[in-house]
Amino acid sequence: MSAAGELRSEFRGGLVRPTAGLAPGMAQANLIALPRDWAWDMLLYAQRNPRPCPVLDVGDPGSPSTVLAPGADLRTDLPLYRVWRDGELVREVGDATEAWRDDLVAFLIGCSFTFEAPLLAAGIDVRHVSAGCNVPMYRTDRPCRPAGRLRGELVVSMRPVPADRIADAVRISGRFPAVHGAPVHIGDPAALGIEDLGRPDFGDPVEVRPGELPVFWACGVTPQAAVMASAVPYAVTHAPGHMFVTDVPDHEYQV
Amino acid sequence: MSAAGELRSEFRGGLVRPTAGLAPGMAQANLIALPRDWAWDMLLYAQRNPRPCPVLDVGDPGSPSTVLAPGADLRTDLPLYRVWRDGELVREVGDATEAWRDDLVAFLIGCSFTFEAPLLAAGIDVRHVSAGCNVPMYRTDRPCRPAGRLRGELVVSMRPVPADRIADAVRISGRFPAVHGAPVHIGDPAALGIEDLGRPDFGDPVEVRPGELPVFWACGVTPQAAVMASAVPYAVTHAPGHMFVTDVPDHEYQV
Repeated sequence: MSAAGELRSEFRGGLVRPTAGLAPGMAQANLIALPRDWAWDMLLYAQRNPRPCPVLDVGDPGSPSTVLAPGADLRTDLPLYRVWRDGELVREVGDATEAWRDDLVAFLIGCSFTFEAPLLAAGIDVRHVSAGCNVPMYRTDRPCRPAGRLRGELVVSMRPVPADRIADAVRISGRFPAVHGAPVHIGDPAALGIEDLGRPDFGDPVEVRPGELPVFWACGVTPQAAVMASAVPYAVTHAPGHMFVTDVPDHEYQV
Repeated sequence: MSAAGELRSEFRGGLVRPTAGLAPGMAQANLIALPRDWAWDMLLYAQRNPRPCPVLDVGDPGSPSTVLAPGADLRTDLPLYRVWRDGELVREVGDATEAWRDDLVAFLIGCSFTFEAPLLAAGIDVRHVSAGCNVPMYRTDRPCRPAGRLRGELVVSMRPVPADRIADAVRISGRFPAVHGAPVHIGDPAALGIEDLGRPDFGDPVEVRPGELPVFWACGVTPQAAVMASAVPYAVTHAPGHMFVTDVPDHEYQV
């Protein structure tokens, strides 16, 4: 079994942990499954906001399968899920089989973990990987372009990068537009409406060292922010940082 | 008025001609407008076939407006339209106002004309531009990935390129993934199921000179092939080669 397949098998068996740094070289994906009645709004929201919502695959209604990992089951093969009702988080579960419905359309959205291996290969420390924690994510005050009934703010992930490596981080991540691409913002968190880097809205805080700037990338948790802001009646998503590990090599998304 | 705005005004006034080479530096787009009932299928078809169907904008039902050119009217501002019923071409018109319906959802799809200016700037002859004709387009035997009720084959555009400039043409067009990106095939037309380069399915034939190879790019006429193959009940599209000229500079689509 591939490293990605083994991981999915462990998650299916009950393992819960963030996925950054796991199965290096294999693309990871955000999951958001919505009732069919909301699928058009979501696909249009993604089309209108491609930086945070780059769609890698869309399933048929009710189907827990994806072309990104034939044989995988989206209901069981992620480490941790969130279940939402009327825009509110009702529970986190390690297995979403009970929460799945016949009318759910699964969207898999690109994840910036995909370009972390190339960053590491270029000698750029990825702080949450070296610290062994989840990536810090923040809600911003930047509205996404609405679509149908969906609206919400941009969510970003943050990685501290030394001043003399920021240009490299931009160039390297920029080669991966399908997994959020280049940063949306470099430096001052307040300009994004982020008050305290030490208190992320999702994930764990990481140290920003002297000589480093915080670098912000659009994040695939953005659809979850839209679920909240738009009071979507029902949704099943991954828990932030607990991604679906695909069978697609990172380099497939490099342009 | 901008060069793009002037052109749209001329088309609105009745001018009919292919748009390759016009308003250089401004992105052009394919139009396909389908009943709302088919919009999900189309957006999913585009998501599953991003090379031929890179979506630049999707309108609200009935709306002839687009963020790509505020103030423009998609019913009048293209030089030539095609109207389809049950997958069959019923007429070509210079003004689609009569053909428009309240339930039509307009999709604007990237067009390879967008990277022709950079090709020309690199000293690569774009044959149909220098010949003053429409680009040659061919239906292939390569099936697209179906979505809902939509299926169909890939359509490609062809530009002859000298052997020693093909690598440059690949690199230059590859920087524009939102407008079809790098070629899908270089050389032997028969491998794509194309029998005779001299008889394109859409547009005009162009000369392939000694020392040149035919280079094939995914083409935004692909959704029209899906309209035909899938017997879509109603559609309004641009006529091949007669594009919507946007107010978006080409470089916006460069990565």
